Amino acid sequence: MAGMTMPRRRPGRPRREETRQTREVVLAAATELFARRGFDAVGLREVAAAAGVDVATVSHHTGTKAQLYDACFGRVFAAERGALEEATARARTALEAGPGEALRALHELVDVFVDFLEDRPETTALWLRRWLEPQRHAELDERYAAPLYRLVAELLTAAAATGALAEPTPHVTVRSLVWAVHGHVVALAAGGGSQARERREFRAFVHRFLDGLYGS
Amino acid sequence: MAGMTMPRRRPGRPRREETRQTREVVLAAATELFARRGFDAVGLREVAAAAGVDVATVSHHTGTKAQLYDACFGRVFAAERGALEEATARARTALEAGPGEALRALHELVDVFVDFLEDRPETTALWLRRWLEPQRHAELDERYAAPLYRLVAELLTAAAATGALAEPTPHVTVRSLVWAVHGHVVALAAGGGSQARERREFRAFVHRFLDGLYGS
Repeated sequence: MAGMTMPRRRPGRPRREETRQTREVVLAAATELFARRGFDAVGLREVAAAAGVDVATVSHHTGTKAQLYDACFGRVFAAERGALEEATARARTALEAGPGEALRALHELVDVFVDFLEDRPETTALWLRRWLEPQRHAELDERYAAPLYRLVAELLTAAAATGALAEPTPHVTVRSLVWAVHGHVVALAAGGGSQARERREFRAFVHRFLDGLYGS
Repeated sequence: MAGMTMPRRRPGRPRREETRQTREVVLAAATELFARRGFDAVGLREVAAAAGVDVATVSHHTGTKAQLYDACFGRVFAAERGALEEATARARTALEAGPGEALRALHELVDVFVDFLEDRPETTALWLRRWLEPQRHAELDERYAAPLYRLVAELLTAAAATGALAEPTPHVTVRSLVWAVHGHVVALAAGGGSQARERREFRAFVHRFLDGLYGS
């Protein structure tokens, strides 16, 4: 987003759409900066420069730096929830069609998540920074990560209840899978080897992982 | 290590044992600082203060900050290799005793790794910081992470060759398992819930993971 500038505003009250767009540009720039350099190293002035607006505009749209940081996680979460809720709902429906369909729907769910993180590597960086200071900003977990973890863990619990699979510790499985995907995103970022092949191999791995845990 | 001070040295040439101890104290202090705050935020002066020695002593033992950083990874690697080489060798031997024994030896190997990282959470933090800048300090991967990944990947390849298991992408499996363990260590650091239960559940999960991938 660096260098992007907002269209010059005509005098008068900003239209709602313009306000929404400005907020989005600020959040995208801030997310990239926080992901790259961490909460402490980034200032509102820098966010403003990267977004092509002035500091007052940043403060107006997102408040303090802590509120801006929170809003960045909120934006990532909203996108992630949008992607996952649909696939989770399909998997819930598939449970009624039997174990085979349920497993296929889980493959699809994990593919959606892998696609999401591959397309937005800043999400991985943002969470890695969060996890490096487990006690700090801990409320971000409860507000943004936990609901998504629960969404998938509850799906696995529901699947276990139908007898489609056995899953004694859904939260451990979901967390481990999430971390495996972050590891994949980091390996892609480090480069080396064929990216296309890495992507294919990782998808095949997570499918084998699910088949191993849940396949009959 | 903060606040620890070295015993006062008598005049004359330091004994070899004393030199080794000083180096160990400096490396332990530096590892903790780098893990907590990252390469850029830590200075040699701070490392010296935490180790209870003067800056010249730090430089004498470990050179520049980049060399000190490298030595911290080297120290972590040496400890990790010590723990894993023995379990890997046992697993190699177990391959001859058939798939059941091989799987049991893999359980033991992963338990050794989980124990290692649970006992040294600074290892996870050090690697998370490294992975946040995939292009920077990239030689640390090749020097310290890659040999350990290869050690285990080659074991899986050897196991696949005997027919004990099927493993088309050992490097993806090893990386995913490593990241799952780091995720577990971070969850423990974040607290919440019963730590003892988390530890038991995670061990049971990694065993199920191996059984699912490799069990017959």
